[in-house]
Amino acid sequence: MKHLQVDLKNALSFIDKNNFNNYDKLVKNQNEKLINKTGKGSDFLGWVNLPNIISSDLISEINETAKQLREKSEVIVVIGIGGSYLGAKAVIEALSGQFDHLKQERKNPHILFAGHNLSEDYHYELLDFLKDKKYSLVVISKSGTTTEPAIAFRLLRKDLENRFGKQETSNRIIAITDASKGALRNMAEQENYKSFIIDDDIGGRYSVLTPVGLLPIACAGYNIEELLNGAKSMFENSQNNSFEENPVYQYAAIRHALYSINKTTEILANYDLRLNYIAEWWKQLFGESEGKENKGIFPASVSFTTDLHSLGQYVQEGLRNIFETVISVEKTKFNLKIPDDKDNFDKLNYLASKPIDYVNKMAELGTKLAHIDGNVPNIKITIPEITEYYIGQLIYFFEKSCAISGYLLNINPFDQPGVEAYKNNMFALLEKPGFEEESRKIKTRIS
Amino acid sequence: MKHLQVDLKNALSFIDKNNFNNYDKLVKNQNEKLINKTGKGSDFLGWVNLPNIISSDLISEINETAKQLREKSEVIVVIGIGGSYLGAKAVIEALSGQFDHLKQERKNPHILFAGHNLSEDYHYELLDFLKDKKYSLVVISKSGTTTEPAIAFRLLRKDLENRFGKQETSNRIIAITDASKGALRNMAEQENYKSFIIDDDIGGRYSVLTPVGLLPIACAGYNIEELLNGAKSMFENSQNNSFEENPVYQYAAIRHALYSINKTTEILANYDLRLNYIAEWWKQLFGESEGKENKGIFPASVSFTTDLHSLGQYVQEGLRNIFETVISVEKTKFNLKIPDDKDNFDKLNYLASKPIDYVNKMAELGTKLAHIDGNVPNIKITIPEITEYYIGQLIYFFEKSCAISGYLLNINPFDQPGVEAYKNNMFALLEKPGFEEESRKIKTRIS
Repeated sequence: MKHLQVDLKNALSFIDKNNFNNYDKLVKNQNEKLINKTGKGSDFLGWVNLPNIISSDLISEINETAKQLREKSEVIVVIGIGGSYLGAKAVIEALSGQFDHLKQERKNPHILFAGHNLSEDYHYELLDFLKDKKYSLVVISKSGTTTEPAIAFRLLRKDLENRFGKQETSNRIIAITDASKGALRNMAEQENYKSFIIDDDIGGRYSVLTPVGLLPIACAGYNIEELLNGAKSMFENSQNNSFEENPVYQYAAIRHALYSINKTTEILANYDLRLNYIAEWWKQLFGESEGKENKGIFPASVSFTTDLHSLGQYVQEGLRNIFETVISVEKTKFNLKIPDDKDNFDKLNYLASKPIDYVNKMAELGTKLAHIDGNVPNIKITIPEITEYYIGQLIYFFEKSCAISGYLLNINPFDQPGVEAYKNNMFALLEKPGFEEESRKIKTRIS
Repeated sequence: MKHLQVDLKNALSFIDKNNFNNYDKLVKNQNEKLINKTGKGSDFLGWVNLPNIISSDLISEINETAKQLREKSEVIVVIGIGGSYLGAKAVIEALSGQFDHLKQERKNPHILFAGHNLSEDYHYELLDFLKDKKYSLVVISKSGTTTEPAIAFRLLRKDLENRFGKQETSNRIIAITDASKGALRNMAEQENYKSFIIDDDIGGRYSVLTPVGLLPIACAGYNIEELLNGAKSMFENSQNNSFEENPVYQYAAIRHALYSINKTTEILANYDLRLNYIAEWWKQLFGESEGKENKGIFPASVSFTTDLHSLGQYVQEGLRNIFETVISVEKTKFNLKIPDDKDNFDKLNYLASKPIDYVNKMAELGTKLAHIDGNVPNIKITIPEITEYYIGQLIYFFEKSCAISGYLLNINPFDQPGVEAYKNNMFALLEKPGFEEESRKIKTRIS
């Protein structure tokens, strides 16, 4: 099998090369902390060996559960927020046909998401859409009391009960939650839901290769073994002790080197719209891992060539605090050539019989050269194709790079203390039981 | 009618208030330049008076054309890139039911987009989806030779001709292009396409209230008069000579004041997923207008509460070079309350019988307070509802604010010189006729 490649040539030209060689030892030290569990947040390293140790029994159980849900569901609604939403969404969007959801004859159920927002209209419209559909739920929450998914689950569970009765509703709900404690675990026991476990040592944004991501992906009809095989191959590749040949070391090192010269915004670019949610997942992974202690690279994303006619102007000539990381896909899934035209009004005949992807690749190369000329360092990540296997490689590549990046910044890449701030205010404003004192304070503040 | 409101209270607390009063005169001076056409790029000010002067005949013609297309089309494909794509996409996404595209019984045709990217798989899959559909094209290009839309138009036109014959194909194509010159104008004349004009004095990113945006929006079934009425009301409001009461003056001034204290990244936040493409349109508008001469605010976007579990951590505690602009929607379209539950496993009964939007509003308020505490200045833009009228207000509000912002930065907000850089490289790499010298040079460079 081919392998994900990282090309730093057009980023290294922006920094001092001798300095960069110092990262050899530095990144290996961070990697040691991961292996030996001696770094910050080392209670949350369950993802590191995961692709190697996930049991074939668990994979079979996930596939069997997905099969049963698929058979009885026109729609499967996945309820979750943050890491319980983005990983599955990203992989499914990457692998899906781009117009499949509009087709009337369907091979796969619709996979929809809920409980990842608090829009009244969204949930009203969702219930309205589901009113004549056979549907099932995959509800994902460690505690079962996170506000967004808890509201969606309450609404949808009651709708299922009204339509199918209590017994059949229990057959249509899969819970992914804590092994032994919390509201959703208790419900699963009492209502007899099939359930999977969220491990204590894997945080939300690192959970896509656990049942949290794997069950929705399997429900959508994709091959989770291949996804895990890809991740495993990247696990092995990331063990390579050569600094130059280890893609994870290279990416983590160059990010930190660029940050050190005030390139504080990273733009993840693709040339294929299917990767847009991979970018959203990546933003959570890196933004939530690094953005603390008033530090961290700000993660943004673009889809080219679309956004060359949008943010492209800024990338070319705006403030010079940005660098660009491009995910390049070598091979398309289908073949389509530009047709010849005798009138040639549009003057495209010089491209006649060329594959469209050839033009896309020249746009990519031309853009890279233009942006380098505009003083934007360029990192290129190449994957051979958009398949389960290579998306698995990409996921593990980013996960491990992010952990090492976080250690290079000397922060804990596995916590998210800032997420509590809005929650505490919201609970105080909503007068949640237990927040009486905070409620009094916040009401004084806003009055 | 109610009106869009701008609240700067939680941004002004970050800056020197006396300094801010100096903007009174400053923004009025920039406005004078717009009115008198004495500023940079004053050849491109056709959008300023547009909502007042667009003729009812043109509106009727657009509506009549849309009606005819809708009657004979299950799908209408809009071909365009940049400003010929984002405005229509943004308005349609904001106004559409969020699951309408998945419904089998359809009131409106699917509005799909093409020619806004160079993905071979995207265009292959699109043709495959269209193979048994009655469809029509709206093709939007000033020149008719922009690479992305030209390729898509060639592919889709040939597909239509193969299926419907040349005569019927001509009835299924609407061209929006230059009044008298260029490839698409020539084709429209020869092939007898119905056509609309792109005015010389309105640039792509300011074109959503011209036929470029209005025809696709009318095709999707929305009321373009109301959109224009909303824009007109904001035009009038933006004439208000009181600095404090003019929302455009306030937004343009605070953006520049924050930029001056190194708040160089603006995050546009919503609490409703339907506004995500309004944010994409906004990114083009501001990024392409301001991002030049190594200046400009970097535009990014988030959708809350979703992204409070993603970029939220960074916003709360990352690098402090960001400020936040929130689009808040006062009223939902539908009503849905949180149900009571006797078991109360999820501990949500304290919210029973509350509208979901109440929780969303408390999340919004709680987040604002948390982010201010985290040293992130907060600008709040409130619209009463998501309707054509208020989306029209929002569009014109951003357009005029952007022009004044650009003048405050002392750049030309109406050109995009940086967009040529990638194009020239791409043409050289593709060996486009006329680029022979550039081809030789670029091949030497990459060899």
